[in-house]
Amino acid sequence: MKPAPAPADPFAGLEVGYDVPALPGMREDEIQTPCLILDLDALERNIRKMGDYARAHGMRHRAHGKMHKSVDVLRLQQEIGGAVGVCCQKVSEAEVFARAGITDILVSNEVRDPAKIDRLARLPRYGARVIVCVDDPANVADLSAAATRHATTLDCFVEIDCGAGRCGVRTAAEVVAIAKAIEAAPHLRFAGLQAYQGAMQHLERYEERRAELDAAIAQVREAIGALKAEGLDPELVSGGGTGSYYFESGSGVYNELQCGSYAFMDADYGRIRDGDGARIDAGEWENALFILTSVMSHAKPDKAICDAGLKAQSVDSGLPLVYGRSDVAYVKCSDEHGVIDDPDGVLGVNEKLRLVPGHCDPTCNVHDWYVGVRNGRVETLWPVSARGKAY
Amino acid sequence: MKPAPAPADPFAGLEVGYDVPALPGMREDEIQTPCLILDLDALERNIRKMGDYARAHGMRHRAHGKMHKSVDVLRLQQEIGGAVGVCCQKVSEAEVFARAGITDILVSNEVRDPAKIDRLARLPRYGARVIVCVDDPANVADLSAAATRHATTLDCFVEIDCGAGRCGVRTAAEVVAIAKAIEAAPHLRFAGLQAYQGAMQHLERYEERRAELDAAIAQVREAIGALKAEGLDPELVSGGGTGSYYFESGSGVYNELQCGSYAFMDADYGRIRDGDGARIDAGEWENALFILTSVMSHAKPDKAICDAGLKAQSVDSGLPLVYGRSDVAYVKCSDEHGVIDDPDGVLGVNEKLRLVPGHCDPTCNVHDWYVGVRNGRVETLWPVSARGKAY
Repeated sequence: MKPAPAPADPFAGLEVGYDVPALPGMREDEIQTPCLILDLDALERNIRKMGDYARAHGMRHRAHGKMHKSVDVLRLQQEIGGAVGVCCQKVSEAEVFARAGITDILVSNEVRDPAKIDRLARLPRYGARVIVCVDDPANVADLSAAATRHATTLDCFVEIDCGAGRCGVRTAAEVVAIAKAIEAAPHLRFAGLQAYQGAMQHLERYEERRAELDAAIAQVREAIGALKAEGLDPELVSGGGTGSYYFESGSGVYNELQCGSYAFMDADYGRIRDGDGARIDAGEWENALFILTSVMSHAKPDKAICDAGLKAQSVDSGLPLVYGRSDVAYVKCSDEHGVIDDPDGVLGVNEKLRLVPGHCDPTCNVHDWYVGVRNGRVETLWPVSARGKAY
Repeated sequence: MKPAPAPADPFAGLEVGYDVPALPGMREDEIQTPCLILDLDALERNIRKMGDYARAHGMRHRAHGKMHKSVDVLRLQQEIGGAVGVCCQKVSEAEVFARAGITDILVSNEVRDPAKIDRLARLPRYGARVIVCVDDPANVADLSAAATRHATTLDCFVEIDCGAGRCGVRTAAEVVAIAKAIEAAPHLRFAGLQAYQGAMQHLERYEERRAELDAAIAQVREAIGALKAEGLDPELVSGGGTGSYYFESGSGVYNELQCGSYAFMDADYGRIRDGDGARIDAGEWENALFILTSVMSHAKPDKAICDAGLKAQSVDSGLPLVYGRSDVAYVKCSDEHGVIDDPDGVLGVNEKLRLVPGHCDPTCNVHDWYVGVRNGRVETLWPVSARGKAY
């Protein structure tokens, strides 16, 4: 027998710099900056830890793919973190995950545009269970017509606005009315509730977050009671983020988590405190995602200029932190530059720094690649598969 | 004679939604949102106007390609706006423009990483004059060695920090020392000065901007005097932005402009005032760039939720404005949603709005396509050619 042919090199023909920031085997100091790097050891520890937690608490974990937009990270979350599938926010993201063979996909958002509804209704043909959120009875007929047209079934969650002030209905009566409309519509199925309290995730104090989540749980419990009274038992009650998953897990009401940022972490989440008052990046979760940057000018003795500016990150939640350094600080950001206070002039030109981004989700969305590093070497490159998939 | 074959359709096989937000010929209300649209009439008027201004004032205009990152927009600036070439901030951007056949390229930034210097020194082989900035004598030998290795010539600007507080040297003595080192180095050529005052562009009052620019002009004039005393006459003195180009043009010192944002405009630039106290988006420049967004939830009567959040824009310079509307306002931005105050409940689900982005440069950098519209129809799609090219 002939040996099986070697797998094709997925990086063949890619030019470092123009096409990709690095290639496997390179030393970390050879990586072209700015780019995103993943500490693979830290990433794997975070993913295993959340998987262990969910298993121990009898919760399904549906990993939030909108954070990383990466088929490879999601596969890791399924393989070593026990994730049951993915949630994402856009039909175009769902298309990426469905085409990659992910079989349980929640669009944790409403879909109203006729062309988007049509695209969504085609996705079960890739072999995936597809769930979408509804917060308006007027949406039901459009979803049903599209699923009927494509001979598919769309599962639907009714979305409850439990404090975020965005999409979702507020009263149990509205939840029941929409759930009934879904159950009555051909090719739709009422599958449960979407109840993600996004606004409280970043409150610094544990007790503040608990108070907000207690209110959300009460709201969800009331909706479930009203649904059951009508014979509509929700199969899944889904919500929870990196700042709250322990509250949902202990609620007796939720049975599915939707955590995203725990896998990578960022400076904004790092600031929130756990039940003992410690920063959650000081033990609960490790920083696995960094913007690798280089000093590219030091013409003034106390200021180092680095190559990561607004086009290498989003600063909506504050500036990045320089990882592991208290002697220098990233203090200003313009389009292509960061200004680093270097009072003692310790940084040299071409020196590389790891930045912890202020906010991981929109930072990942400006990069095309994750460079996976381990033991000072590039181990792999993963595309940000759903980057720019906003529509 | 046979007729020439029809040109291949560049959009053949592209799926609306998954691959592109629209295709030529579609009505504006069929475009998949969120995405960037360009009002082609307004864009062409802006580009012609800046070209006319530069010509009337005897200035070269090197259009700033870092703003739009688009080969197509740059070609339009050359064809109808008289632009002499492009400037950009990254080697990877310069690679895109050089491979597209642009023949006069300035990297208006320092390049220090050895691999980046090597990539830069190869670019003249595409037929382009390539200019790079220097603010450290230690950079000169590396640039010279790379250009020698590739048998090319790199033109060099000495960068003066005339107030932005980033890269660049501050004193005439430093400028002269670096210029001499460049002139003495094989395969390098001292071509002039980079003196862009970025920090003042967004000061609201014309008189404040003039005062800052007057200081910059004095600093540049001193450097030119010191250079001439050493027999080093700078061929090009380059700078100027959308908030200052009239000052550089009237200075008698600068001979090249580097404007970018004038072509698209944004909310932050719109707020600055011209010499008569009028907002510059009220006559000087037109908004040509918009984020097209759709209302996708209106479950609360006074709040419309739209589909353009942090992954459709950068909010570093503030939230976007709803173009042409005073009855509704974009008041809050999260990852995938925008909250629009709609006190009278006038917006309907699926209604489309044009948003003027807070800051055009980093907003363009999160999108893959510009959808060019004219008379309510999609006329063309242009890729954001250098999107993500940060390294």
